Amino acid sequence: MKKVIVDMDGVMADVYHQLIAFEKRDSGKDINIHDVVGVSELEAFPNGKKHVNEIGFFRTLPLMKGSREAMEYLNNKYDLYIVSAGMEFPNSLREKYDWLAEYFPFITLEQIVLCGSKKVVSGDIMIDDYPKNLKHFSGEKIIFTQPHNHHVEDEDYKRVNSWEEIMNIL
Amino acid sequence: MKKVIVDMDGVMADVYHQLIAFEKRDSGKDINIHDVVGVSELEAFPNGKKHVNEIGFFRTLPLMKGSREAMEYLNNKYDLYIVSAGMEFPNSLREKYDWLAEYFPFITLEQIVLCGSKKVVSGDIMIDDYPKNLKHFSGEKIIFTQPHNHHVEDEDYKRVNSWEEIMNIL
Repeated sequence: MKKVIVDMDGVMADVYHQLIAFEKRDSGKDINIHDVVGVSELEAFPNGKKHVNEIGFFRTLPLMKGSREAMEYLNNKYDLYIVSAGMEFPNSLREKYDWLAEYFPFITLEQIVLCGSKKVVSGDIMIDDYPKNLKHFSGEKIIFTQPHNHHVEDEDYKRVNSWEEIMNIL
Repeated sequence: MKKVIVDMDGVMADVYHQLIAFEKRDSGKDINIHDVVGVSELEAFPNGKKHVNEIGFFRTLPLMKGSREAMEYLNNKYDLYIVSAGMEFPNSLREKYDWLAEYFPFITLEQIVLCGSKKVVSGDIMIDDYPKNLKHFSGEKIIFTQPHNHHVEDEDYKRVNSWEEIMNIL
């Protein structure tokens, strides 16, 4: 059975909508997601660095549209693992664990990996929004479209724009 | 540079000494490490399951003799990663992170992996005390002697009895 490695932030969880909501809450500024295409998250959100370090940021992330159904589908068909690089935010470790337990109760503890880098993770297929995670992977690389990666063009990557597309190809 | 994957509990950290101390504290029972050779940790320590779930258990683990010096040596010579299966104890995630920061400040966040199983971890050399972790690994497998694994005989594994031995062969 093929090993499929799926990223959390920006793939299973909708980080942009959270950053937009937190920015609006703190500064009143309304950031339109279409205005931040092609720039990094830190450039796009003036208070982004503060917000991702806030207690509760990762615990209350909204689901990426379609991710729950698609993950259930993948879980029935593949040897599925969730691999998230959360080590730079120590508070996020428990929050990610609790978030997964709430929204993806069919994922077992055995399937969760929290790491600082994904350089020692192996498998057959990786779905991620960050090229820095995909580039060390030896299997098939699927890049999940997010505003920050719109400019990335690499023939090594297959690009998907939604969870619906993932279900169509996997 | 070769990737070396090192386990925490029972390799970098001395879990047996902590289990003995907690058992003594709670029941007054003095368990001699020589009496629990060849049996599982759960069989050896009547209150072991309760103790590993106690807040602070992983944060206050004593260092395995020689582990700090040897890890510093490995860190200078190899591409070193700490991979610990702590997902069944959600409190341990942050505790392990803080424990590493205290005793191994030269280890960066990029080098830490906390997971449920080690099936998606790849590298050249793995040092672990549990056969269940070593058996899926595709590289060189080094089993670190602990009371529970004394009975394990497998020509696939190279056995080491101390960190001094590790420094002699790596």
